[in-house]
Amino acid sequence: MDFSKRILNMQASPIRKLIPYAEAAKKSGKKVLHLNIGQPDLETPKAFFNYIEKHKPEIVAYTHSAGLYELREAFSKYYNENNIPFSPEDIIVTNGGSEAIIFALAAIADPGDEVIVIEPFYANYRGFAEMINVKLVPVRALPETGYAVPSTEEFEKVVSSKTKAIIFSNPSNPTGAVYSEEELKRIVDFAKKYDLYIISDEVYREFTFDGTKHISTMAFGEYDRTIVVDSISKRYSACGARVGVFATKNKDLYNQVIKMAQSRLCPPMIAQLGTIGLLEMDKSYIEKVYKEYDKRRLSVYNELLKIDGAIFEKPKGAFYVSVKLPINNSEKFVKWMLTDFSIDNTTVMVAPLSGFYATEGSGTQEIRIAYVLDSEKLKFATHILAEAVKAYNNKK
Amino acid sequence: MDFSKRILNMQASPIRKLIPYAEAAKKSGKKVLHLNIGQPDLETPKAFFNYIEKHKPEIVAYTHSAGLYELREAFSKYYNENNIPFSPEDIIVTNGGSEAIIFALAAIADPGDEVIVIEPFYANYRGFAEMINVKLVPVRALPETGYAVPSTEEFEKVVSSKTKAIIFSNPSNPTGAVYSEEELKRIVDFAKKYDLYIISDEVYREFTFDGTKHISTMAFGEYDRTIVVDSISKRYSACGARVGVFATKNKDLYNQVIKMAQSRLCPPMIAQLGTIGLLEMDKSYIEKVYKEYDKRRLSVYNELLKIDGAIFEKPKGAFYVSVKLPINNSEKFVKWMLTDFSIDNTTVMVAPLSGFYATEGSGTQEIRIAYVLDSEKLKFATHILAEAVKAYNNKK
Repeated sequence: MDFSKRILNMQASPIRKLIPYAEAAKKSGKKVLHLNIGQPDLETPKAFFNYIEKHKPEIVAYTHSAGLYELREAFSKYYNENNIPFSPEDIIVTNGGSEAIIFALAAIADPGDEVIVIEPFYANYRGFAEMINVKLVPVRALPETGYAVPSTEEFEKVVSSKTKAIIFSNPSNPTGAVYSEEELKRIVDFAKKYDLYIISDEVYREFTFDGTKHISTMAFGEYDRTIVVDSISKRYSACGARVGVFATKNKDLYNQVIKMAQSRLCPPMIAQLGTIGLLEMDKSYIEKVYKEYDKRRLSVYNELLKIDGAIFEKPKGAFYVSVKLPINNSEKFVKWMLTDFSIDNTTVMVAPLSGFYATEGSGTQEIRIAYVLDSEKLKFATHILAEAVKAYNNKK
Repeated sequence: MDFSKRILNMQASPIRKLIPYAEAAKKSGKKVLHLNIGQPDLETPKAFFNYIEKHKPEIVAYTHSAGLYELREAFSKYYNENNIPFSPEDIIVTNGGSEAIIFALAAIADPGDEVIVIEPFYANYRGFAEMINVKLVPVRALPETGYAVPSTEEFEKVVSSKTKAIIFSNPSNPTGAVYSEEELKRIVDFAKKYDLYIISDEVYREFTFDGTKHISTMAFGEYDRTIVVDSISKRYSACGARVGVFATKNKDLYNQVIKMAQSRLCPPMIAQLGTIGLLEMDKSYIEKVYKEYDKRRLSVYNELLKIDGAIFEKPKGAFYVSVKLPINNSEKFVKWMLTDFSIDNTTVMVAPLSGFYATEGSGTQEIRIAYVLDSEKLKFATHILAEAVKAYNNKK
């Protein structure tokens, strides 16, 4: 009785694996400010539970495998308002964005097939790919360029007859980059040239700052090759609802993916109801949330500027910023902050970036900060980080 | 741009693929009694929504990847009351039983590896296995024996160096069989002899009739090789909640599977809350439900006896009965009932059993009836079925 190779190859969550150190720190009486995970502290809008209360059914029955039609209509309306022409028939509601990614990868790639990913990337792509034996082939974005889309030459270097797709998130988790029209067009042109699918993870669509604007990959009209992955988790601070979206205008692909959706019967019904409530809210909610994150972003950014030798650009989107620190091993550094460092009996937990790379030995100087606390706390947390860098380097 | 071979190999849900014919029948004004899908008509207990209302959080946040600890405690209590010694630490709450099966298969089998399944089997096992490229190897149970566990010789015929596990549901979906201690012991002994995992799908645990008793595979003490798959869907008429369980006392296996659970972050939070409410109810609920299904079972059984040449045994468990009918193609027959047959402008939809087999060309005379309507309706539905068999054979 062995375990499968695929499960042995799977890494423990890089975001979660240091949690025991945080727990030990708390047990010892330290306060830990968590900037390691993309779990917003904002209240989930009341509209979520109000809609459930008002529409709760007698029987919590299976819904359509693609999700409640009313919900798909509400999503379709939302997309159309964002100039993304998805109809309810283009949408499959999923168990979070996670399942949408698994569906996309499984439908277009067999074991051994390859999917190009811009790294650093959302760490769980790796787990999903390993679960279904698809190989992620990384192309590197660099902190020195603000993690911009790599040059087409870099993509050309890794493309092969086994390449089926390219996957990326925009706005980017973990880097906070927002891709420009020119950058996206390069990706789309590359996908056209090699006849690849594009898996476009757009869960942070609303969070673009400093006048940048999110451009959906759908804007380039390559409908047959474009798959959009989405989620309500961040937009509505409803991570635990587990409501995501797989969407494509490629009908044949949709009809293939629906078979997987039917196998697992349906996405969670109660959360689907709540999501209708969320999507029915007016835009003032998102505007308020947007302003809050913008404030937080600047508060982190201004403190980061005080770290000598830190390499980063002002983050433009999502609620993350990746930073290259003047330290030699960010995982050890993050651990050390939990075990050996504090200011006013408070320390901070961030995510080492190495787990967000597919290339071994990469990201060892980088960290990801999720700005998911209020700006005062964030200012203090980033100050702790800055002081920790100094102390860590002095102790050597 | 192709689709993956795995998705092309995946069959459309055999339960759902005839739905267009049912829809057409309804459009034409016919009433269709649905016995094709295991969606109970019983009300979900109020305890579900009451608990949510009372404990709804400010933030619908990610829960622990294994599920809320309070929920795992409630499941553990339930298992211990059923003499199944799972602690909260043995349990991973999943997106329905579906995800538990995917987790089990992915953790123990690589692409090309084999898992023995007693057929006919829950049709979606096939979809899950195809999604992750595991090969299901069937061993056949026969209508003539009440779909009893096949002889050990039959299992010996198909076991190979690639076999990693044996999977089955008990009580059985689709057959309604309940395995005896002797039958289960044979499975366990076989698994021991060839060092296989046992994936024991026990979602219909409470539904065993005529004095039979469900025996969990855990009763044989082979803790390291035993994985229990469970779900609240049927027990509490809460199919749409999507709350299932993967449970094992094999710590190493648990620690492997938790990596997959972490990748997809967590199971749906609101439904987890509701499930705590369900598990806190006293046993009178299950007893009431049990009596209702027993009544239904007898009402279907007594009408089935009137079909000359039908081969079946009195179903002992779950809420299904599989029947071999004196017809030559059950899929065509099911279609024909929808398009060409009715009594009092009413027809019935059942599931052709061929989709519940991995062996091509099998089950072509068999159907599955889900007794998910009240006994009066069921009596009428089974009467329609009996008359349809006669009419179908006469028309030829």
